[in-house]
Amino acid sequence: MRERMPHHIGFIPDGNRRWAVANGLSKEHGYAYGLAPGLALFEECRRRGIGEASVYGFTKDNTRRTSVQLEHFREACVHFALAAAERGAALLVVGDDESGCFPAELKRFRRRSAGDIRVNFLVNYGWDWDLDGLRAGGGLRSAEVSRLDLVVRWGGGRRLSGFLPIQAVYADFFVIDDYWPDYRPAHLDAALSWYAQQDRTLGG
Amino acid sequence: MRERMPHHIGFIPDGNRRWAVANGLSKEHGYAYGLAPGLALFEECRRRGIGEASVYGFTKDNTRRTSVQLEHFREACVHFALAAAERGAALLVVGDDESGCFPAELKRFRRRSAGDIRVNFLVNYGWDWDLDGLRAGGGLRSAEVSRLDLVVRWGGGRRLSGFLPIQAVYADFFVIDDYWPDYRPAHLDAALSWYAQQDRTLGG
Repeated sequence: MRERMPHHIGFIPDGNRRWAVANGLSKEHGYAYGLAPGLALFEECRRRGIGEASVYGFTKDNTRRTSVQLEHFREACVHFALAAAERGAALLVVGDDESGCFPAELKRFRRRSAGDIRVNFLVNYGWDWDLDGLRAGGGLRSAEVSRLDLVVRWGGGRRLSGFLPIQAVYADFFVIDDYWPDYRPAHLDAALSWYAQQDRTLGG
Repeated sequence: MRERMPHHIGFIPDGNRRWAVANGLSKEHGYAYGLAPGLALFEECRRRGIGEASVYGFTKDNTRRTSVQLEHFREACVHFALAAAERGAALLVVGDDESGCFPAELKRFRRRSAGDIRVNFLVNYGWDWDLDGLRAGGGLRSAEVSRLDLVVRWGGGRRLSGFLPIQAVYADFFVIDDYWPDYRPAHLDAALSWYAQQDRTLGG
């Protein structure tokens, strides 16, 4: 039997700092360990024929953290984005590129690159910044990002933390207790199996 | 030890139709069985000192259901609103009152009534209708509704279904598998105990 698959999945890779502390590292060293899992998940989505994936890099809220943490998560995000683009993702970086917190290396991805699987990578993203597009008389600043079918979060938190609130209005929400650096393909399996059992009403 | 309490809780009382069918009734008869639990939950929130509660009545999406269902859930919503106001809630009804689906009896509650616990009751509400306030150059149409700390949903669904997406950006999300008409005070206990164990970062 062919399972009902989500077209567009959102990923919230949380728990890097808790993973670092649990593994005897200082908090900021957790982010680098999220990179290889990110690329593994990307390839797993592509293999399964997922059309679009949105991934939380960092938010404007996150930039209130210590400068050493900021430096490390910016670096991890730049590496992930460049590696995903190199592997052929149709990459769009969504976030406030007018702020100094936005990595200059990613400015060119504010327009989507050519590729196959659409990857929307949220970098210096803010839900309020996103809505400001409406206030300015246009569309959402994330208008190129389609409606989410499923949101998967690692690290046990049962909240969106500002993740694409408008695209997520009808999304099903699946939570994994493991920290993000402990990602395994079985996590995605579990999320997709669960999703296939949910009814889809789109609010009706 | 005094537990950390949410100031503002959102309630999504889902599962009325499934409850009806499971109890040998036709779907539309489930809504009336949601009324007494709603008033019990209201009194429980007041007793515990919750400052503000937002409750899903029905949405613009829901009005696509059969006319017999529409008639029944509109009636249940009118009864709940009038009873809550009579019991002294500071009631605000939030929804599109320019549509024929909005019950005329509730128009006067588009301005908040005098009372103690703030109750925001979503009637003919739509997330897109809410955002239209921003598009029109003002604030959200739900601008009087504060940020949500916790959202509790009955009926097993792990989704917001368009429930106050902007107020919910940082909310913790607790799901109860029982159908809404089977509400018991232990459900609220479970949600509050769980909430007290979550860290609060507001996206930081």
